[in-house]
Amino acid sequence: MSDAIRLIPLPGIPLVAPGDDLAALILAAAERSATKLADGHLVVCQKIVSKAQGRIVALADVTPSEEARRIAAEDDRDPRHVEVVLRESRRVVRRGHGVLICETHHGFVCANAGVDLSNAPGEDQAVLLPEDCDASAASLHSALVAGGAGPLGVVLSDTFGRPWREGLVDAAIGSAGFAPIADHRGDHDLAGRELQVTATATADQLAAAAGLLMGKASGIPAVWISGVPLAGDGRLGETLRDPANDLFR
Amino acid sequence: MSDAIRLIPLPGIPLVAPGDDLAALILAAAERSATKLADGHLVVCQKIVSKAQGRIVALADVTPSEEARRIAAEDDRDPRHVEVVLRESRRVVRRGHGVLICETHHGFVCANAGVDLSNAPGEDQAVLLPEDCDASAASLHSALVAGGAGPLGVVLSDTFGRPWREGLVDAAIGSAGFAPIADHRGDHDLAGRELQVTATATADQLAAAAGLLMGKASGIPAVWISGVPLAGDGRLGETLRDPANDLFR
Repeated sequence: MSDAIRLIPLPGIPLVAPGDDLAALILAAAERSATKLADGHLVVCQKIVSKAQGRIVALADVTPSEEARRIAAEDDRDPRHVEVVLRESRRVVRRGHGVLICETHHGFVCANAGVDLSNAPGEDQAVLLPEDCDASAASLHSALVAGGAGPLGVVLSDTFGRPWREGLVDAAIGSAGFAPIADHRGDHDLAGRELQVTATATADQLAAAAGLLMGKASGIPAVWISGVPLAGDGRLGETLRDPANDLFR
Repeated sequence: MSDAIRLIPLPGIPLVAPGDDLAALILAAAERSATKLADGHLVVCQKIVSKAQGRIVALADVTPSEEARRIAAEDDRDPRHVEVVLRESRRVVRRGHGVLICETHHGFVCANAGVDLSNAPGEDQAVLLPEDCDASAASLHSALVAGGAGPLGVVLSDTFGRPWREGLVDAAIGSAGFAPIADHRGDHDLAGRELQVTATATADQLAAAAGLLMGKASGIPAVWISGVPLAGDGRLGETLRDPANDLFR
């Protein structure tokens, strides 16, 4: 029988700056809240990972391209922001209503290629996604274990919109230490029928759950989740759908 | 400061049949696990709601249309299943790789219009989504309160695929007793900047979190979530994106 799952906020992590030792900040926050980081999953907001990595662009240093200036003029946006978004994009998937839905170089499809102005350290700065989200998760995972954490999964999360529905939900953009998708092939349902639905996106469920504590204004950039079995291995990047099988390219 | 959130499985709910009193079954399960259903959110798997409502179709009674027969032949599927899917659909949004992505009469965009063969009571039956998911949530909410539950939110959840990503995540398809989207307009981020991201899909976050306990083979069709403030009011149906603003129609 399944036991309860606990989502534990790790508060008191200060505003992160380039070069900060994120693992040390998280371990200290866990210690303050008497949370043992072992046999569970840590969800970390992408923003603090990006900031620690210095993935910050000063808009004053950005010279917008012709295309960025055109889009910005049409959509009444800062052309330097649009330029950064285009640089972070493999392609623009949709454009309309003042929104740019982009496919990032990692393969994520999201608004503005994940480039965010809110919570940036300065008024004229943009925070980019980590260059390699799975490597960032793996590196944080190693540093946490080296710092005394037990077996754990690490999820990097970001806040994504969805087609067809209003409102944002946190999704996983990187993972380490567990299988981001649980494969149920061969399992049977309660009536004994083999399951047709075979893959649960565990990493995304964890990210969405942590999002309940991670409101942008809450100051909670990391959540510990206990009670979800730590299983398997893999990288989140492997769970992006093969474009050949994607009906919404 | 946010406190921990707990996700508590409500086990021991038997296989539900048409006409069953779902509120009574849930209240009994909560009592067995010593869980007081007050000041929190209950997430209920759509399947048991549909079954209690008798939203079950015997495939033997279904005469496939010409279109259903054509699609079934091309995709190597049961034409009666395809027929039920088409009947539950306002339109087919995408078709390919043997999958029908449909817009349901409610306005949800999902595979097979939510018509499911797995966990159906018999080999030749399909379970449909409730006809009105918000009304179903409201009715369950009222019955739970009448049966002794305290103030609570109710979420009906179903397991949805997503564009661009493999793996399924539970999403909300109906809600009652709280605002399914939290509006942060006017809030400020940690740097004092007004938030650009203003709407968090609380109901979907709750559904995804509950999904961590609701694996199809787990026999857990209901999860109690404590620690998420019960706020506002509204219906999930109001959070479907206006087609005029939708870039992925």
